[in-house]
Amino acid sequence: KSHAKKNSPPPVVHYQLNNLTSTPDSIANGERVLVLTPLARFYQEYWDNLEQLNYPHELISLGFIIPKNREGNAALTALEEAIARTQSGHLENRFASITILRQDFAPPLASQDEKERHKMENQKVRREAMSRARNSLLFTTLGPSTSWVLWLDADIIETPPTLIQDLTSHDLPVIVPNCFQRYYNSDSGKQDIRPYDFNSWRDSAVARDLASTMGPDEILLEGYAEMPTYRSLMAYLANTDRPQPERVIPLDGVGGTALMVKAEVHRDGAMFPAFPFYHLVETEGFAKMASRLGYGSYGLPDYFVYHYNE
Amino acid sequence: KSHAKKNSPPPVVHYQLNNLTSTPDSIANGERVLVLTPLARFYQEYWDNLEQLNYPHELISLGFIIPKNREGNAALTALEEAIARTQSGHLENRFASITILRQDFAPPLASQDEKERHKMENQKVRREAMSRARNSLLFTTLGPSTSWVLWLDADIIETPPTLIQDLTSHDLPVIVPNCFQRYYNSDSGKQDIRPYDFNSWRDSAVARDLASTMGPDEILLEGYAEMPTYRSLMAYLANTDRPQPERVIPLDGVGGTALMVKAEVHRDGAMFPAFPFYHLVETEGFAKMASRLGYGSYGLPDYFVYHYNE
Ligand SMILES: Nc1nc2c(ncn2[C@@H]2O[C@H](COP(=O)(O)OP(=O)(O)O)[C@@H](O)[C@H]2O)c(=O)[nH]1
Ligand SMILES: Nc1nc2c(ncn2[C@@H]2O[C@H](COP(=O)(O)OP(=O)(O)O)[C@@H](O)[C@H]2O)c(=O)[nH]1
Ligand SMILES: [Mn+2]
Ligand SMILES: [Mn+2]
Repeated sequence: KSHAKKNSPPPVVHYQLNNLTSTPDSIANGERVLVLTPLARFYQEYWDNLEQLNYPHELISLGFIIPKNREGNAALTALEEAIARTQSGHLENRFASITILRQDFAPPLASQDEKERHKMENQKVRREAMSRARNSLLFTTLGPSTSWVLWLDADIIETPPTLIQDLTSHDLPVIVPNCFQRYYNSDSGKQDIRPYDFNSWRDSAVARDLASTMGPDEILLEGYAEMPTYRSLMAYLANTDRPQPERVIPLDGVGGTALMVKAEVHRDGAMFPAFPFYHLVETEGFAKMASRLGYGSYGLPDYFVYHYNE
Repeated sequence: KSHAKKNSPPPVVHYQLNNLTSTPDSIANGERVLVLTPLARFYQEYWDNLEQLNYPHELISLGFIIPKNREGNAALTALEEAIARTQSGHLENRFASITILRQDFAPPLASQDEKERHKMENQKVRREAMSRARNSLLFTTLGPSTSWVLWLDADIIETPPTLIQDLTSHDLPVIVPNCFQRYYNSDSGKQDIRPYDFNSWRDSAVARDLASTMGPDEILLEGYAEMPTYRSLMAYLANTDRPQPERVIPLDGVGGTALMVKAEVHRDGAMFPAFPFYHLVETEGFAKMASRLGYGSYGLPDYFVYHYNE
């Protein structure tokens, strides 16, 4: 046993959860933000965008969970190089701490290609695995001094640098920006934008009726013609011509590409169900669970973040 | 900014969840155990029993959550005195680390007295608050190197010193000993034992039928004559005359007075629902959630731990 150990009793740490705030004045109140990213592929644009967030980096901790396969190994190597540069660079760019977890289960799909990922029959098993990855990351990195959790997918490559301040300023338990994608519009011959994430929605009577006829293990999926839900999708509620980035709408399901959550919502038990929960899984099931715990979810239809275009 | 900070980049920590084991050979494999206790009252006998556990203390971390009221203040003071003695005492008695959380919400009942606590109309609101306390404790203390989580109520004052080894030796996802109570039997004029915790049970057709007629927000409670469930209660399956402490039975609901959980069960998302989950809440809802995640719960009818007698 080392000398140091003999002389210093092990640490006892006290935390007053009731003194921990999550307020619209998050910077002024020194509120700690945990940015959590499940990461199967590394994009330099993701890291550059993360580094440009101008919320004080000393208040930001990062957590990653990476699958244990060849693609994951490559992503890890690239991530580590990016981290090494940032964490030895300018002081004000360095993040407070970084945790990297390797997953203890294999991803269910051999291919991470978008076409394969988005096939309806693959969605249930895929989103259950994503739920477990998100929960492992959340349960092991959320600390007693975290005020906010920002979920940010590894393929979100463009957000306003004020993303954290902007989302926390609404002081809502769960809030989600609108996730779009830049693409080349061959009709107009110009760069354009289009909706990408369809998991942020307001429920409909049709979807509720559909759910009521389902077996306990079936799930409702959004964005598939085979299963029209007539939910109001936030993706289609954007006003791209005259955006009002502060406009807020209530939601019943949320996507996880970029998602801000007050830490107390998670602490009370809201996680990402890997099993059908009211016929919902993963981030959509999370919104339902938050609602069962008394927390509302909200969306910003005119506040855009952009997904990588494969 | 301090000099130290300037020179040492912030920590990047790597964890291989797939190298983290939870095995029947927990000591030999150096598996870390997190003991979690929601604590409203401090009993010296609880602490003495905890200190006597002979699993290597350097592998044991402790976590407490204490309500923010007068009773909680008194409990905290007493706990801190006990901790100070142990953590400055014999090296081998010191625990690896200790986290104390103060709750950010008030307990729903003014009185912590047993009669008041156990009234049926108080159970739902009480167990919902207990769920939030357990989840806050779990989400903020579970680390990436924890292999096992032992839930241990603050009024469990007697267990075998080999409790941790004994429970982990079964290598089961969720396992619960039988929680009894010592009392003075005025019929026999002797000290005797009797069942205390009725939350560990095997489901019955009656309970399932009862649940199927309930509204979505109603919960099934165990141990109330007004609501006979005909579940098989582990409390009544004990063979106190010829105990076989290794005898294992499958369970559908578990109590939380003493409860061993493989950390991966929690990491996958199993928590204590503060809302009716299949008409179950708290530890009983936890067992159901673990089962939805593919993990079975088990009980040891002849392995006893003892609850304080108020
Ligand atoms: N840890 C982990 N991350 C994954 C896995 N599959 C995808 N991801 C990451 O999780 C996020 C969402 O996955 P993605 O495939 O982009 O979903 P989509 O955009 O909805 O098709 C991205 O950050 C991925 O890099 C996986 O099996 N394990
Ligand atoms: N943090 C916290 N702990 C509590 C609260 N109420 C009870 N406890 C603790 O939670 C555990 C279970 O509660 P207890 O009242 O003993 O439940 P019972 O034995 O089922 O009646 C014990 O360790 C209590 O000290 C509370 O409001 N907050
Ligand atoms: Mn994506
Ligand atoms: Mn008790």
